[in-house]
Amino acid sequence: MTPDTLSITFGALADPTRRAILARLARGEASVTELAEPFKMSLPAVSKHLKVLERAGLIARGREAQWRPARLEAGPLKDVSEWVGEYRRFWEESFERLDEYLRELQKKTKRNDKTRTEEEQQDPNE
Amino acid sequence: MTPDTLSITFGALADPTRRAILARLARGEASVTELAEPFKMSLPAVSKHLKVLERAGLIARGREAQWRPARLEAGPLKDVSEWVGEYRRFWEESFERLDEYLRELQKKTKRNDKTRTEEEQQDPNE
Repeated sequence: MTPDTLSITFGALADPTRRAILARLARGEASVTELAEPFKMSLPAVSKHLKVLERAGLIARGREAQWRPARLEAGPLKDVSEWVGEYRRFWEESFERLDEYLRELQKKTKRNDKTRTEEEQQDPNE
Repeated sequence: MTPDTLSITFGALADPTRRAILARLARGEASVTELAEPFKMSLPAVSKHLKVLERAGLIARGREAQWRPARLEAGPLKDVSEWVGEYRRFWEESFERLDEYLRELQKKTKRNDKTRTEEEQQDPNE
């Protein structure tokens, strides 16, 4: 079975170095040498990551034989955004539930504080 | 090196069956048996996928020994959404460039149509 496009994209993104390469390319295109430098990686290691990103359509490479600058291609990221956007209501709901819980907690704390203050006022010399 | 949280999440999402399981759980919690049915998968195969999703924090399982319903947990999806959101301007930019290109193309087509029509009008009996 050939993996579907979205699976290939998610697979390519499941690596911190590849995500760091994308973050670097978001600032402008770069050659393999330029990419290897900040990551303290060998050129073949960077090339391997670039191949994975290229296969996923997340980057494109220039045609010049020596200097083949890589640049970001945002299409698959848009697909990821659309896919995950379908679940937005779930994290918004859980945030609302947490918010409600915290408001309830705050109300109770205030009530307790008030009760305590009243008790203290009733017995000032205790 | 232990994989970072986001890499674990992306890794878990890099499979169409696991994404389909999440889509099913978005409609409500379900047991392994209920999940296996529509996917025509064996219970151990479903269990294996659920373990990957659980490790990524994308689902939580009930505690009842027999019936351990799985439910969606949206936290990691929110992280994915935030991560990919950083790249939004890139696909919006490329969409704008495409849009501009198509508008230019349309203008040219209209101009050509106009020229052709004028030519036809100049030579109505040709």
